[in-house]
Amino acid sequence: MDYEHYFTKRISDLKSEGRYRVFADLERQKGRFPIALNYRDGEVREVVVWCSNDYLGMGQHPEVIAAAHEALERCGAGAGGTRNISGTNHYHVLLEEELAAFNAKESALLFTSGYVANQTTLSTLGATIPGCVVFSDELNHNSMIEGIRHGRSAKQVFRHNDPEHLEQLLSAYPKETPKLVAFESVYSMDGDIAPIAEICDVAEAHNAMTYLDEVHAVGMYGEQGSGVAERDGVRDRITIIQGTLAKALGVVGGYIAASASCVDYVRSFGPGFIFSSSMPPATAAAALASIRFLRAHPEIRDRHQERAATAKRLLAERGIPVLPSVSHIVPVMVGNAALCKQASDLLLDEYGIYVQPINYPTVPVGTERLRITPTPLHDDAMMAHLVESFSAVWDRLDLHKAHHPKAVKAAE
Amino acid sequence: MDYEHYFTKRISDLKSEGRYRVFADLERQKGRFPIALNYRDGEVREVVVWCSNDYLGMGQHPEVIAAAHEALERCGAGAGGTRNISGTNHYHVLLEEELAAFNAKESALLFTSGYVANQTTLSTLGATIPGCVVFSDELNHNSMIEGIRHGRSAKQVFRHNDPEHLEQLLSAYPKETPKLVAFESVYSMDGDIAPIAEICDVAEAHNAMTYLDEVHAVGMYGEQGSGVAERDGVRDRITIIQGTLAKALGVVGGYIAASASCVDYVRSFGPGFIFSSSMPPATAAAALASIRFLRAHPEIRDRHQERAATAKRLLAERGIPVLPSVSHIVPVMVGNAALCKQASDLLLDEYGIYVQPINYPTVPVGTERLRITPTPLHDDAMMAHLVESFSAVWDRLDLHKAHHPKAVKAAE
Repeated sequence: MDYEHYFTKRISDLKSEGRYRVFADLERQKGRFPIALNYRDGEVREVVVWCSNDYLGMGQHPEVIAAAHEALERCGAGAGGTRNISGTNHYHVLLEEELAAFNAKESALLFTSGYVANQTTLSTLGATIPGCVVFSDELNHNSMIEGIRHGRSAKQVFRHNDPEHLEQLLSAYPKETPKLVAFESVYSMDGDIAPIAEICDVAEAHNAMTYLDEVHAVGMYGEQGSGVAERDGVRDRITIIQGTLAKALGVVGGYIAASASCVDYVRSFGPGFIFSSSMPPATAAAALASIRFLRAHPEIRDRHQERAATAKRLLAERGIPVLPSVSHIVPVMVGNAALCKQASDLLLDEYGIYVQPINYPTVPVGTERLRITPTPLHDDAMMAHLVESFSAVWDRLDLHKAHHPKAVKAAE
Repeated sequence: MDYEHYFTKRISDLKSEGRYRVFADLERQKGRFPIALNYRDGEVREVVVWCSNDYLGMGQHPEVIAAAHEALERCGAGAGGTRNISGTNHYHVLLEEELAAFNAKESALLFTSGYVANQTTLSTLGATIPGCVVFSDELNHNSMIEGIRHGRSAKQVFRHNDPEHLEQLLSAYPKETPKLVAFESVYSMDGDIAPIAEICDVAEAHNAMTYLDEVHAVGMYGEQGSGVAERDGVRDRITIIQGTLAKALGVVGGYIAASASCVDYVRSFGPGFIFSSSMPPATAAAALASIRFLRAHPEIRDRHQERAATAKRLLAERGIPVLPSVSHIVPVMVGNAALCKQASDLLLDEYGIYVQPINYPTVPVGTERLRITPTPLHDDAMMAHLVESFSAVWDRLDLHKAHHPKAVKAAE
């Protein structure tokens, strides 16, 4: 086999399908978010970032940055090892305590990323609880799917956000069979939200554990911001809450929060946890500062929801096909990979607006979209410019104004 | 099923087997490495860390810390997204260019961790190259094993560092069958080094790709420090070189370096890459500074080897059972989980020496050990204190002085 030829051929296929990914080379500008520099074709230009997952701009918050500087000065750059072999820094201990309190759970555990938190926890539970059956929402994130697959337990996929279908599937197993129901609160590509209480009703009736991914909700929902389960008053009904430090908290890393014995179990048996170097002290310190700030500042969440609602309203008024998201996510449907890329390029080149095209495999073919994430720092002038620019690009490319393809997703 | 009871029972089993892990709660002290603070039982005490994987102390190097501070000031804390969706920062681009040059390859790709680099790259290649067979050294790291398992391709395990056995296994397949030989350069628990050239001879004869994990060699071997493949002059014979930013480079994160098309392939098809938030700009900046320093300073590698050789010699002179490692790693065999933990506790409590006990599953049962990693910053006085303390603990616990259990490993 000619390996180079094979790799080149597969890349060339991606290009001809219009779904070869070109990463925008950005330089974030501390204190100027959502403005960033964009390196492109030998030039550097200012753009407004409209697709960041730093949903609240906390990555540039003075208290977060100050905490990182302080920990760097105190401890240096890296942690120096896995958690077990010299890599537990006191900041990790403090952050895990804070995450447990934040989520109203006994204990919490840090991971390299939200991806690794899902992959490791789900594969460990699936692989090590004898006879365990995992019930997975059909639109779960890739990291959950990969974790469940890797655990090699029995698996059942229930229809998206459908407790009745889940009930049917659970009913097929005896009560004593170990069961785990895995789902998300906010689905990040359509912006819809799970009926958590109803799913818990069904899970409890069948003695199933529940695993809730709050990655796109942490910092943004609930009185103190731990997620939708807090907002809905159902945190005590969830066995394991999973989240990220990389999105609304503005840093990087992932976590789970659960009972002390459950967390200790994953800590003791999860390979992706055991065998990974731990996060730098400055990363943990920054995340700690971010959580403490967000718990005390619900007003940032109100402003965030207002900005998202305003963007949806203004775009819809101009006939731009916004999905009827109930969250802070503003998906605008294009429905074609090449057109989606063209619209994104035009917005960047001629209007200084950066919205990455979202193509397969992040979303299904035919549901390609521009996914806008307004933050509290996008002001009215930026919003007006966004709407004008989208309107102009829609006209220039003759995109459908009322086109709402069936909304399905597999988030990135 | 009573889940809480199950978790508690499994944890209790670990405790009774003497292999429940208690993490040492440390606070690294910038500029004082290898000295750190240890939080324990409500007290804070100074200890000398003798088991850090910050092998060269670069995590506390002034140039590394300055680079992190500068990037924090310039860009803020987090990167704000996956690499594709607003999360590529210019520091990532610069670091990938540097890593390509460092490894004498066309291209390089960053991952959240070395674990994720191995897991994602190996699973992606195994799963997406039709008919691929992976040949894996029996002592490969957990992250490689998990990646190969998850790829679900055919797999053959060859005896540790045994090119003849590899040759036998490869011979069973036609030349046109796609093949990948995965191995490490430095095996971190025994400190032995692979015969890379001989493995390449065999792989080339059978048209197999080679995948070399240099995690415990990066920064420490070769004229510019990219690893053992550089030292041995065989980098051009390796298809994919994998490494970490978390050990001798002193930061966090992982990478692969390979041909442009191979890297683009993993970039385009690797889920653990595509769906993970990217590392903070300050992490990338710190790693960049670390690599640039280490490329220009071979003398730190000479000092490192001298320190490790000295530790081995001094311990052996006192009858402490050091494995005959040919690298910078100094494994001292105990061969029993409970005794290993006792020795470690005694060293910490009474001698201010922190060496984590290494038990199963990091090493096989019966080969439990204390794994010492002397750095260029461990001075003669620390070394003398180490040897005296080990000698005293060996006497107090009546540990075997000439006990050399068969050396096998599965590194952490």
